[in-house]
Amino acid sequence: MSLSTTRRSTVTRLRERARTDRNDLYAVLDAGLICHLGVVRDGAPVVLPTGYGRIDDTVYVHGSTGAGYLRMLDGGPVCLTVTHVDGIVYARSTFHHSMNYRSAVVHGNARLVTDADERWDGLRAIVEQLAPGSWAHAREPSRKELAATAVFALDLTEASVKVRTGPPGDDDADIAAGGRWAGVLPVHTEFGRPRTCPTLPAAAPIPEHVARRGQHEPIPAAGF
Amino acid sequence: MSLSTTRRSTVTRLRERARTDRNDLYAVLDAGLICHLGVVRDGAPVVLPTGYGRIDDTVYVHGSTGAGYLRMLDGGPVCLTVTHVDGIVYARSTFHHSMNYRSAVVHGNARLVTDADERWDGLRAIVEQLAPGSWAHAREPSRKELAATAVFALDLTEASVKVRTGPPGDDDADIAAGGRWAGVLPVHTEFGRPRTCPTLPAAAPIPEHVARRGQHEPIPAAGF
Repeated sequence: MSLSTTRRSTVTRLRERARTDRNDLYAVLDAGLICHLGVVRDGAPVVLPTGYGRIDDTVYVHGSTGAGYLRMLDGGPVCLTVTHVDGIVYARSTFHHSMNYRSAVVHGNARLVTDADERWDGLRAIVEQLAPGSWAHAREPSRKELAATAVFALDLTEASVKVRTGPPGDDDADIAAGGRWAGVLPVHTEFGRPRTCPTLPAAAPIPEHVARRGQHEPIPAAGF
Repeated sequence: MSLSTTRRSTVTRLRERARTDRNDLYAVLDAGLICHLGVVRDGAPVVLPTGYGRIDDTVYVHGSTGAGYLRMLDGGPVCLTVTHVDGIVYARSTFHHSMNYRSAVVHGNARLVTDADERWDGLRAIVEQLAPGSWAHAREPSRKELAATAVFALDLTEASVKVRTGPPGDDDADIAAGGRWAGVLPVHTEFGRPRTCPTLPAAAPIPEHVARRGQHEPIPAAGF
């Protein structure tokens, strides 16, 4: 299924980097740890990092009901952006220096989730995005914790994806001139060794869903 | 020097995570590869990833003069956010799952830079932030390239910094109950092995400023 082609979700700069398959959108979102969520407050933008989770064509975010930021979400226009930096592009010219990256930008109006089942599923998606396997391992939310948490939904109706891969795009004259190195320095997000909470014995066994993640390959980076 | 304490730059949620020293702001900005820049278009937020550079108390961003997005920057309110994810916080409860992170949020009005010297310095700061050492190594911008590039400045007058470090903040009852692992999985940004551009001989020597960066320690991550 294709992505939307509304004015604001149509890539106008460097169109060759635009991806229009919905699976590319899912892939970028599913590989992320945080999003940057933009709202408008008093006519000015506010951009904050936060966790998120996806179920089909809906992205969920959450926060404390006491957070003023979240009150701005309900019904209002938001922009949710997830970016992976995959490489630093060293060109022969300063002008063609660039980055290899994957980014997804979602536009829409956030909806306060009130249905108990959808709230539960949304929270699970957020926890599982951050910490796969944790929902089954950790204590589930209590009634009090649920009451303190607001959950918002954003439909993936209007979204765009941009991906840059490959070597620098130097001018022919600079390539012909020679004498300067050019290439890409890959950038990865990697997990270190898990650190056990000081309130537990140091030898407490680390559960499989955490230990396995730390040993995993880094989040796959595009590149040439 | 302290950071500002205007309404929108005062951290209201989880105040214990707020840092108010200007050096903490510099440290978070200087360690980043990209920012997420928010603007308002037709009343809705637009958040896009982009490179940036800092000189003293000014952050610079740039883009093609042909980019519609950039036209929105001139004089208008923007929010520039840089975030580092340092760890996944696995708690005994789903509710206390969290992230260790450092984030800087800058509010202000972007100014189109017209002074030739400031444009040059701003562009150099942007290239050096992304690729330290590249400005001296690569071909400098031509007059034509400069004409195609818009540079914007944002003062660091109104900014906030939040940092979370340390173990999960589980409830006493969950700690006492035992039976569940809790801790932190560190997250690092690391550089891989440089890949030489296919237009160069594979054996082309990789310059020191690139090779050294690839072998470097990862960007330092906070943690316990």
